[in-house]
Amino acid sequence: MPVHLLPPAAADLKPVKGLLLGTAEAGIKKPGRQDLLLMHLSRQATVAGVFTQNRFCAAPVLVAREHLAAGKGVRALVVNTGNANAGTGEQGLADARATCAEVAKLLDCETEQVLPFSTGVIMEALPVSKLVAGLPDCVAALREDNWLNAAQAIMTTDIVAKGVSRQITLDGTVVTVTGIAKGSGMIHPNMATMLGYIATDAVIPQPLLQQLVTHACDASFNCISVDGDTSTNDALMLIATGTSKAQPILDEKSQAFLQLQAAIREVAILLAQAIVRDGEGATKFITVQVEGGRNVAECKQIAYAVARSPLVKTAFFASDPNLGRILAAIGYAGVQDLDVQRVRLYLDEVLVAEQGGRAASYLEEEGQRVMQHSDIVIRVVLDRGEASAQVWTCDFSYDYVKINASYRS
Amino acid sequence: MPVHLLPPAAADLKPVKGLLLGTAEAGIKKPGRQDLLLMHLSRQATVAGVFTQNRFCAAPVLVAREHLAAGKGVRALVVNTGNANAGTGEQGLADARATCAEVAKLLDCETEQVLPFSTGVIMEALPVSKLVAGLPDCVAALREDNWLNAAQAIMTTDIVAKGVSRQITLDGTVVTVTGIAKGSGMIHPNMATMLGYIATDAVIPQPLLQQLVTHACDASFNCISVDGDTSTNDALMLIATGTSKAQPILDEKSQAFLQLQAAIREVAILLAQAIVRDGEGATKFITVQVEGGRNVAECKQIAYAVARSPLVKTAFFASDPNLGRILAAIGYAGVQDLDVQRVRLYLDEVLVAEQGGRAASYLEEEGQRVMQHSDIVIRVVLDRGEASAQVWTCDFSYDYVKINASYRS
Repeated sequence: MPVHLLPPAAADLKPVKGLLLGTAEAGIKKPGRQDLLLMHLSRQATVAGVFTQNRFCAAPVLVAREHLAAGKGVRALVVNTGNANAGTGEQGLADARATCAEVAKLLDCETEQVLPFSTGVIMEALPVSKLVAGLPDCVAALREDNWLNAAQAIMTTDIVAKGVSRQITLDGTVVTVTGIAKGSGMIHPNMATMLGYIATDAVIPQPLLQQLVTHACDASFNCISVDGDTSTNDALMLIATGTSKAQPILDEKSQAFLQLQAAIREVAILLAQAIVRDGEGATKFITVQVEGGRNVAECKQIAYAVARSPLVKTAFFASDPNLGRILAAIGYAGVQDLDVQRVRLYLDEVLVAEQGGRAASYLEEEGQRVMQHSDIVIRVVLDRGEASAQVWTCDFSYDYVKINASYRS
Repeated sequence: MPVHLLPPAAADLKPVKGLLLGTAEAGIKKPGRQDLLLMHLSRQATVAGVFTQNRFCAAPVLVAREHLAAGKGVRALVVNTGNANAGTGEQGLADARATCAEVAKLLDCETEQVLPFSTGVIMEALPVSKLVAGLPDCVAALREDNWLNAAQAIMTTDIVAKGVSRQITLDGTVVTVTGIAKGSGMIHPNMATMLGYIATDAVIPQPLLQQLVTHACDASFNCISVDGDTSTNDALMLIATGTSKAQPILDEKSQAFLQLQAAIREVAILLAQAIVRDGEGATKFITVQVEGGRNVAECKQIAYAVARSPLVKTAFFASDPNLGRILAAIGYAGVQDLDVQRVRLYLDEVLVAEQGGRAASYLEEEGQRVMQHSDIVIRVVLDRGEASAQVWTCDFSYDYVKINASYRS
């Protein structure tokens, strides 16, 4: 079960003026399941995004990048679950383009103004005729206050729908930031099998919006790991509908920009953490905090070695303070000149190891007590600099194997 | 259960003249379990080794390296299971040295002529008094034809003892190569929680022996992965007792050197593969063969990305040809300029994917048929060069989680 994660109430997800959402049951995933989402944007909207770095990136990712680069503006985003349209070669590209063309026809815009997204099983042909047949229902369902349905329609193995809103006041005007995301396996940074959509009604040009989405992604989705697998389809999209009465944000040094940046980052972090809390089979939410490094890169390197170690993750599942496995992971992370005599390891506030071994003050009962918690901080102090990094991950349970051994059945 | 792996018969493991082995029950692991091994070498023996690259390397590894470097020759190796003496700081070093001193007293040699090895749980103090109390029993049990007992005495979570012999003829004289190994989890190259001891009666100086062990290790133990975790204690030791009547091997270009090299490499490969076949929870033995790369490094990089992907490994456990997961792993391996259009993916002889997607000829039934096998080859052809590399791994099952969630109980 998800770790300390409840689905949002519909009322928690504040509408963003200028953005309509409609969902439908297209029969791509299971019967009785909404599996298609259409987002329709105001004419003045700007859109920016961050995409997977996987070389086998999916057809919709290629097409979305291409359409974004065409610079004609974006009027719609279309997302299906149940099929990733990845590893599908030329046919996959044709299917993604056909989807966009159909949306363009229905919404009276150009094909290049539509961005496609898919998530689900890899290397099977997208059932494009089912998808296209479901689009009119999406159009009929378009509403501003439809975020919860949207969050539900993009889920794959997610147990809980993920969405969050924040509101800030700019020039005396309330500006909204609302985001939804999906993902619970194939999760590792740069990026996960993860789709995220964050929208604001702020008025902001595309280049500044791209800065905001890159910044938010680095602080959130690029700091999580469920299983170390990175997917073919990931995307985090940031939409500014431009409908707010607040002044346009034109300067990255302005107070308004910084306020908006902070709100978007917070929404992104909460969504990213929600993905880990809903990690496949997760029973614990683990923050790996590495401090005192020479630079952020080495802190991240060590944090990820710990976060992706199956031995560490199974020990947490068992609440077994077999903490030498954490030392082993720190040791093989690849920081060649690391002086292990200086490393200190804490579990929450309990000092576990120092000077190359178990701390004299450490009591197994204390470790055991912390391991029982469902939110745990692994803190590693390298004592060789000022840099730090943190990564969020979850434990590794029977259910992870179960979910992934039977994903397609 | 181990995949196509039977324990050797005692008669399969040929004695190596000049090397005596004795085991005992020291009470470090479970009651009723031999957990201590002593090897006593002829005076003229030469010894070479390869050790873990983990920064948190264990006390016995530090001491073994130091004693080997002292250049006084090696007269004994002592190995305990049940406790890794890793993450044990200064006390761990003192315990490893005390062990060597006690062996030296019993065998009438110098402390620096003894190499210590430990495997088992990390970050708990070595019960050195139990270990020392068990040594006289080891001495009393010293015999040349004791390899099977030795293989059993070093097991941790291993289900099957691992040992193999090969004999070659040099100058009309039969020369023996016999090796044993242990390890089944925390297995990833450079190296695994793996101990391996290979001995030959050939006469060969230490520098040439070091070449042989490095070569054999690169072709074997450095090509396996069970869970991507690399341990604090790994060592592969190569012992030449120098008792053979065959001519001394003094030239690395000689026919005798090449014959011996091939025999040692074969023994090392069979031991390394045995470790994977006995991988924790393994139900399948998987060879990941990457061909047509620009260089070996990129082939290994891709092979390891596939071999360590939990999503790939759980799909093999389930015999589910969800092969897009392999494409995804190839894609995120980090070969930046990989042209996925040129990549071909085979499962045994079945062409699964080409030109960025599912092969036109591929039938799901064919994939399903191969997935039912317990020995499977994943073949990836990059079509951009002449280099190749292979890695051996296993699937990821419920039992992996079970074994590692309850390792200490």
